[in-house]
Amino acid sequence: MKLNNRGLLVVISGPSGVGKGTVRKALFEMKKHNLIYSVSMTTREKRSNEIDGVDYYFVSKEEFEKRIKQNKFLEYEKFFDNYYGTPLDKVEEQLKNGHEVVLEIEVQGALKVRRKIKDAVYIFLVPPSKESLYNRLEERGTEDKNKILKRMEKANSEFKLAHKYDYIVVNDDVHNAADRILAIIRAEHARTERSIYRYQEMIRSK
Amino acid sequence: MKLNNRGLLVVISGPSGVGKGTVRKALFEMKKHNLIYSVSMTTREKRSNEIDGVDYYFVSKEEFEKRIKQNKFLEYEKFFDNYYGTPLDKVEEQLKNGHEVVLEIEVQGALKVRRKIKDAVYIFLVPPSKESLYNRLEERGTEDKNKILKRMEKANSEFKLAHKYDYIVVNDDVHNAADRILAIIRAEHARTERSIYRYQEMIRSK
Repeated sequence: MKLNNRGLLVVISGPSGVGKGTVRKALFEMKKHNLIYSVSMTTREKRSNEIDGVDYYFVSKEEFEKRIKQNKFLEYEKFFDNYYGTPLDKVEEQLKNGHEVVLEIEVQGALKVRRKIKDAVYIFLVPPSKESLYNRLEERGTEDKNKILKRMEKANSEFKLAHKYDYIVVNDDVHNAADRILAIIRAEHARTERSIYRYQEMIRSK
Repeated sequence: MKLNNRGLLVVISGPSGVGKGTVRKALFEMKKHNLIYSVSMTTREKRSNEIDGVDYYFVSKEEFEKRIKQNKFLEYEKFFDNYYGTPLDKVEEQLKNGHEVVLEIEVQGALKVRRKIKDAVYIFLVPPSKESLYNRLEERGTEDKNKILKRMEKANSEFKLAHKYDYIVVNDDVHNAADRILAIIRAEHARTERSIYRYQEMIRSK
């Protein structure tokens, strides 16, 4: 009966550069849903187009490590000397209140969450091709060629983890991808293992 | 690799009177899909609003029984002295050609198909309440009270089979229900076990 009142956790993940942030933003610009975005915390530098508390909570390394010791993360990762983590308290609170919570996290982090939360929906965002991923990283213009090659190498190993996700969504177009994710969320609500609790009373009545 | 080229079979089922036909029609009036409807065959009387070859193939009992002997049905059921069946040849041909084929069939028939075709999507349509199902059967005005009570009895036992389906869709509103079914079909295309074949080449490439 727990599934009935508890909210749905939706995890959007994928290799860096695939466009997780832009797809997530497009998703939140769409109507017909009540999704809540769980803002991640990071120690990496803020990009010029990012807003603290909206895109990430940008904190110092010391602050982040203090929170690790206090067990305040659902998961966290260190990636190229920077920490990325999902603050636990807010996610739990929103799920308890029956909200649909969206996480947008790195691949390793998503798999850590998967081990803890079984009934969430895990979505793996992929580029239409590896070339398009490389071009995206290059166009972002935030990193030198060496870092881009490192990210491509990491992406290559992460692609092999696609089978650990429930859904694979190709990011051929930001709005198409967001639209597919919304369809997935709607469909998940109708999945028998989630929805049968709602109809059980009716089904059992004479 | 088979899943890649083969079409997707979508089975819409549910107790009689729940509105399978109207929801299916609303689904086919919607855009943004290439679904093909597999017309069932029946020996029951044509209702005034039904068209032969569109709603059902209406055939005689003799013709139907001849086809049973020739093994020409994916499934068939006898229900209140009438036969209902799914012609096998067309479904197979359309799936082979990569089409998305929709079946709209009775509960027992759907479960027979489930035993034969594992990778199809099974959707159970339910009324918002049992009362609304009774009212629908009464409003249809095609049957006397005794027959309606028989159908309600049958519906009560069929509700208990909901857990055998992949999705439960409540028919609170015909267009909402059709919209949910379309979201389910879109989401199923992205499910990892179906879609990973399409990305495997990219994932494996260096």
